[in-house]
Formats: sequence, structure tokens, C-alpha cells
Amino acid sequence: EAVAAHFGVIVRQDPVLEDRLRALFAARGREMQPVVLRMAGVPEGFDVLDNPVGTAPGLWGERAGPHGTERVALVPGVPREMAAIWDGSLVARIDALAGGAVVSRTLVTAGYGETDLAARHGDLSDVLVSDSRATLGIAYLPGLGTVRLRVTARGPDRAVAQERVERAADRVRERLGDAVFGEGADTLEGVVLDGLAARGLTVATAESCTGGSVAARLTSVPGSSRAVVGGIVAYDNRVKTSLLGVPEALLTEHGAVSEAVVRAMAEGVRSRLGADVGVATSGVAGPGGGTPEKPVGTVWVAVATTGGTHAVRLQLTQDRAVNIALSTVAALNLVRRRVLG
Amino acid sequence: EAVAAHFGVIVRQDPVLEDRLRALFAARGREMQPVVLRMAGVPEGFDVLDNPVGTAPGLWGERAGPHGTERVALVPGVPREMAAIWDGSLVARIDALAGGAVVSRTLVTAGYGETDLAARHGDLSDVLVSDSRATLGIAYLPGLGTVRLRVTARGPDRAVAQERVERAADRVRERLGDAVFGEGADTLEGVVLDGLAARGLTVATAESCTGGSVAARLTSVPGSSRAVVGGIVAYDNRVKTSLLGVPEALLTEHGAVSEAVVRAMAEGVRSRLGADVGVATSGVAGPGGGTPEKPVGTVWVAVATTGGTHAVRLQLTQDRAVNIALSTVAALNLVRRRVLG
Repeated sequence: EAVAAHFGVIVRQDPVLEDRLRALFAARGREMQPVVLRMAGVPEGFDVLDNPVGTAPGLWGERAGPHGTERVALVPGVPREMAAIWDGSLVARIDALAGGAVVSRTLVTAGYGETDLAARHGDLSDVLVSDSRATLGIAYLPGLGTVRLRVTARGPDRAVAQERVERAADRVRERLGDAVFGEGADTLEGVVLDGLAARGLTVATAESCTGGSVAARLTSVPGSSRAVVGGIVAYDNRVKTSLLGVPEALLTEHGAVSEAVVRAMAEGVRSRLGADVGVATSGVAGPGGGTPEKPVGTVWVAVATTGGTHAVRLQLTQDRAVNIALSTVAALNLVRRRVLG
Repeated sequence: EAVAAHFGVIVRQDPVLEDRLRALFAARGREMQPVVLRMAGVPEGFDVLDNPVGTAPGLWGERAGPHGTERVALVPGVPREMAAIWDGSLVARIDALAGGAVVSRTLVTAGYGETDLAARHGDLSDVLVSDSRATLGIAYLPGLGTVRLRVTARGPDRAVAQERVERAADRVRERLGDAVFGEGADTLEGVVLDGLAARGLTVATAESCTGGSVAARLTSVPGSSRAVVGGIVAYDNRVKTSLLGVPEALLTEHGAVSEAVVRAMAEGVRSRLGADVGVATSGVAGPGGGTPEKPVGTVWVAVATTGGTHAVRLQLTQDRAVNIALSTVAALNLVRRRVLG
């Protein structure tokens, strides 16, 4: 309404949008409050941008102004709805306004931080040097335990931009080796789950410090029952002994956060749940629980397969939530490297 | 460097920041690449804004410009680092520039969507009517299964704004009743975990469709071992029978996604792990696995206590990730209402 007033037009109810709202609420079996119909109001002359994941549509308006064409895009405030409208239609309109094509290809890496990647693999921008740098760019987009590298190319048209981006991204990927686990929207859990399923392998989880996050990440993948048998969150040591068969003597001698115990957890869950692969975590996520020998951030992850058991120690330095997320990624990445590598 | 050039000043290395970077890397036991020291570059005359969670500091610069004072704030691109600097120092600078105090109080609710809340409890803005609306505002901030209601008041000084916001938020809270589970940064899992621990109660989880998310949310709370014994991710039906003791006959007769099975899961994990409270989930998260009788989004959650078992059926309509998140919140909220209510 505010934008309509600014543009000097009225807001009309859009009957198509009204029907869509009624259908959405009917499909959810929920009564539609009258206030919902305000979402079907469209300033005269505006385009509707489809919202594939929610009720409120996006809107796009243009008019001639004193300094050129004025353009307004309206999107819902819910981030995932805004993102869906952005990806679905807004970005194409903005590309068109830019008068040329911009194409990106994103490589996804695990196991190295942003600065580590740059140091280990050199300044990646040098692989772009044989092209004009003005038309190519590389961005490091750090996540929790993963870094996305987005290679972007501009060109007079989509074909030229596409060819440029493919060539550059291929060379970056070659340089980074097995740090790269996927591309685009690939997730580590998706790559691991799909890789296990493609090999006909099943997996079971035994989690202490990650508290269910490894299982939750694996089961977030559609069709995860192809590979996931189940898991055990062994928070209390009694659960480690009773359900995972970790010998009491190991816990007494080495403590729960130890190579011996995490190996026994991985082997125990593999055998007790009858899975091909067992993956386990045990650590001190913090903020409490640290000792001089095992400070906060000491984490062991292990993977047990028919070929043996492999364990890795991490020394993390972040807060509890980040330590848990990094431990989860490390466990998934260990499965990737040991089983799918 | 670009901002310094725009301001016409040079960038100096700040020795205090350099020392801090060296100390941070030393504490993490990692070699510092020389490129890291660029983070200690400060345009002349700029203030350093402390970054409590990362390496790159924020910067604040001002100068007299032709249209008044020009102010620039620079923050790292990592969202949590930007947020920490915003909360830690930026917002106070901006408040000061606004020439008055803005105070908010946020109520956190679970179990109702944004529109449901408004419909069930009336237009909440009417509780603000005895004050001047210009100095009070209410914002609905929807999350996945939770909605935060932020009541904001402005005033000539902090005391007046604070008094206004307390009065309004108390009335909103009274109106919303037990939909409100906390305030400010309270999380549902934190309230549930702390509530269980305060009553000396322990909890164990049995998860099918949520795949470990309920356990992961509970164990995300610092000190969660006060109440969490552990959990079982019973993805494969064999895990439901072998580890949770769900009778095969129940699975055959009712299917895994059923009231009978989710009750048996909650009771089974409670007894097998020796916890006071058992919480269970079983459902069709999607996108596959739906049937005419149990379409995608059919989810049962149950809570078993010494006082009996209570189960609730949900019919969700979103994508897999959202269905899992909403099921997780429903399970935690059921514990809150049945055990802590």
C-alpha cells in the first residue's frame, strides 16, 4: 500500500492470487483468516512474482521517473520465501537489466578453512590469469566446516560467460583435489548418503558430543533410508557400555573422550546395528567439561568399516554450537574420505 | 583500502590488532599466514570495533562531508561475526546517533503460526492502544515452529522506553498464555532442558522421521548432560524392535507411522535407557514415502512419563527439511506442555 501510494496507483485484489491462497489453505486443512487475503492485493500495473514456498507473492513495479525508470521489487520478509522468489524470478530480471550474462559455478570443499585453502593451494586467482580478470571472479564463501568457492564469469552472452566459467572452475577444481566434495547446492551429507547408497552400503551412527547431529544431517537427505540404518546418541557412559558394547575398562582407563573409546563406539554401532559403516564422535564441545589434558574442543571422530577402523583427533577452538557443527562435518568428511575416497 | 582511498587517508597497521591476531592463531596452534595481517590494517582516524568471535575487526569512520557528517561502518562478511560486532558496539553507536533510546523485549512462542497467533489472540496491537502507537511497535518474527514477538518502545531516554516496553510486553504475554515459552534469546530446547534439569528429571529420545534432530537440539544446550541420557535413531524398523522393544505385531498391524508405534517407542526408550521422560517421533517427512492413508507430512510425536503416555498427530505440508524441523519443535513442545506445563 505504501509503494502503491508512492507510485500513485491503487491496490487491486488479484482474483488468481485469491484463488491460490484459498487452495493453499484448503490443502493444509486450515481455516483461512480474512486478513490473509491482503496478500492478494497488487498495485495496479505491477507484476506478480510467484512464491513457490509460501503464501505472500513477490511484486515488481516500474514507472518512468524524473531520473530514469524507477523499479521496485517487493518480497516477503521470511528469508526462505524471499530466497525462493529471488532465485525463481528476481535474479533473471536483474540480469536482464544489467545487459549481459553473469554465470557462476560453485565448488564445495570440506576439511579446510578459507585461509588454509588459500595457503595450501596458492592464491587461486592466478588460475584465472589467462582470461581477463575483469570478466572472471572468485569468491570464498565460508560455512561451518565447509567453504564454497564461487567462480563467476561475465560475458556478452550466456554462451561466452558459461564457457569462461567452466574453464576456470575446472582448473580451480583440479588444483584443490579431494578437498572438493561437490558443486552447486551439493551438501556434504548428501554426497556421503548418495555415495553410500550407490555402493549399496549402510551406515549407523554412535554420537556423544555431536548429540545426534551426524544422524540428523544424514537423515536430512531425501531417501536417506537407502543407507541409514539408525544411530545411538550415547550421552551417558552407561549408554556407551549397554547399547554400544564399549568395555567399561576402556572408559575407566582412557575416559570417554579418547581414541580407544571412539573406535569402540564406531565398531560397536556397526556391529550392533548390522551396518556396513559405523561412524562415531566423542569430545568436549564446551563450554564446560574441559580438563588440562582434554581441553574444550578436544574431539575424536572414528569410522569403522569391514576394512578396519580409522580415528582422527580434532582440536577445536570455537563455541559449543560451532564445535558441534565442525565435529559433525569432520565425521561426515571422514566417512567420505575413508569409504568413498 | 577502498574506503580509505575514498576518505583520502592512508591505511596503517595497528600493532594492537596484529598482536591479537598472532595470539589468536597461537592459541589455536595454527600457523598464521602473512596475508592474515591485512586484517590489522586501519584507515587513519577510524575506530576499531572489537570482534569477539573472529579475526577480522569492524571499523568505524567519520568525516565532514558536503551534506553533513559521512559515517562508514565496515564489518566482516561472515554473518555471525557481523552479528557479534553489531550487537557488541555498532547498534549502540547508531542508537546514539538517533538521539533517543529504543528498547525491545521479545516473547518467544511455540505451537502456533504467525497468522494463527494473530487470529487466536486478536490483533495484538490493541494492547498497545493506551500508549501512543507512535512510540510502541510489535513485530512478528516467524521461525520454524516458533514465532518471536518483539515489542519495541521508543522514548526520550532509556528509563521511559524501558517502562513502556515492560508494560506492553507484560500485557501481550498475559494474552498469549502458555503459547509463550520464553523471552529474548530463549530457545525451546533450552527451556525444556533447563526445566527438566530443575525438576531433577532425565530424558531419552527415540526418533524415526526426525532422525536425531530432537536429541541434537536438546544436546545443543550447554550442560545438557544434566538431563539427557541419550537416544536412539530408529530409522530401520529392525532398530525399533531390537533396541526400543516395539512389538513386531504393532509395526505389522499399524505401520511405523502410527499412534501405537510412537507410543511404544517413547515408552521403550524411557525404559531401556532408564530415563524419567521418553520422547518419540515417527512420520513421513517426504518427499517420498507417502500413502493415501498416511500422506507426506503425517507425523506422530509422543511423550512417555511416569504419569502415562501422550501422543499427538501432526499433518504438515512443507518440504522435508521444514517438516523435520516442525516435528522436532512439536516433540520438544509436547515435553514442555506435558512435563513442565
